[in-house]
Amino acid sequence: MAVYTQTKTYNTKAFMGMIDITQDFQAAVTEAASAKGIRDGIVTGFTTGGVAGLTTLEFEPGMVGTDLKAAMDIFSPYHDETGRVIHYRHHETWHDDNGSSHIKAALLSPFITIPIIDGKIAIGPWQNLTLIECDTRDRVRDVIFQVMGE
Amino acid sequence: MAVYTQTKTYNTKAFMGMIDITQDFQAAVTEAASAKGIRDGIVTGFTTGGVAGLTTLEFEPGMVGTDLKAAMDIFSPYHDETGRVIHYRHHETWHDDNGSSHIKAALLSPFITIPIIDGKIAIGPWQNLTLIECDTRDRVRDVIFQVMGE
Amino acid sequence: MAVYTQTKTYNTKAFMGMIDITQDFQAAVTEAASAKGIRDGIVTGFTTGGVAGLTTLEFEPGMVGTDLKAAMDIFSPYHDETGRVIHYRHHETWHDDNGSSHIKAALLSPFITIPIIDGKIAIGPWQNLTLIECDTRDRVRDVIFQVMGE
Repeated sequence: MAVYTQTKTYNTKAFMGMIDITQDFQAAVTEAASAKGIRDGIVTGFTTGGVAGLTTLEFEPGMVGTDLKAAMDIFSPYHDETGRVIHYRHHETWHDDNGSSHIKAALLSPFITIPIIDGKIAIGPWQNLTLIECDTRDRVRDVIFQVMGE
Repeated sequence: MAVYTQTKTYNTKAFMGMIDITQDFQAAVTEAASAKGIRDGIVTGFTTGGVAGLTTLEFEPGMVGTDLKAAMDIFSPYHDETGRVIHYRHHETWHDDNGSSHIKAALLSPFITIPIIDGKIAIGPWQNLTLIECDTRDRVRDVIFQVMGE
Repeated sequence: MAVYTQTKTYNTKAFMGMIDITQDFQAAVTEAASAKGIRDGIVTGFTTGGVAGLTTLEFEPGMVGTDLKAAMDIFSPYHDETGRVIHYRHHETWHDDNGSSHIKAALLSPFITIPIIDGKIAIGPWQNLTLIECDTRDRVRDVIFQVMGE
């Protein structure tokens, strides 16, 4: 049994910009096999971004570009129908504008754990591991890949 | 320390059909104890279904049959009040009808990790580990149980 | 490789009362280092409360006191605009009033897994690990901290 850690950095786009990081999960697992001999276990991806999330998605243009954001805007909209930024109490604390971002991130959650079987991440064919930027401006985000197993 | 993997297959029902798989989590942990001597650690259940989810629920008829689906339909409805299927951009990619399913699955997430203490999954008395089918037709779904510990 | 388990108990406040338990995650990891020599690995926090959740939040008064609850009340409200408790089918099973609580908890999920690097939980500066009470009355909740690593 061993632990292998890798961190990667991503330039993310504001307002639900999404990046398919499936290959980076697999790359971390492949390197854990080379470096530590890990063939079976789990990998946890964790983004340290306070208003970013990690989930599984089918990474196709409709869901990535439009659908998921539109759905989440129903319970955490950024602006109203006239284009005015909606007030959240969070804005009073920091005089910023990303209260809606914090809500989205809290519901998406910043991590995902995947089984590793014989050196491969055991995901389905339509599951893309996706980093989601919930902030209202472009950001730089780290994802930590923590591989554990034997 | 050791790793023990088990996969089970379920026939799921469309539109938020739910299956209580608590006993299968415990069965995987019990077999991991027999096969590998694992008594303490964690078990991660992961469904490889692209539009399925795993969460904890009290598995009683109201929540399972009606309440959770109704709540999620507020931000990801399948049809409108007249019964017509709502258009998602996802449908343009594949000419299918399950854009709402993808949104539900992304928010539920496909995995859950539970502590194992002295050979038992350490859940509360009202927490049933529940597989949820978000697709618009019945499906067959795998859940991988990955047990790690000592 | 080793496993270290710790459980802490919290008095939670009804209707989305939140407690910042970041320091308790770190304390469990620090004790796992002392007791078992664990410096790198993961920690899973899991609440056994059926209608409680665990997530990451910036723990500031706006988000904690108002914003997240208001957003979640859009898809799982407790009462309507006149103050009357909304009926959920769950209430028919138990003759209680917390159907909305169950929905919130199912979407927040009861656990979070965090990488441990050199004895520290690898979270970002704005990520507070937060226990959220979704029930309609004050409760007492356990959180299990399961530390695994080497």
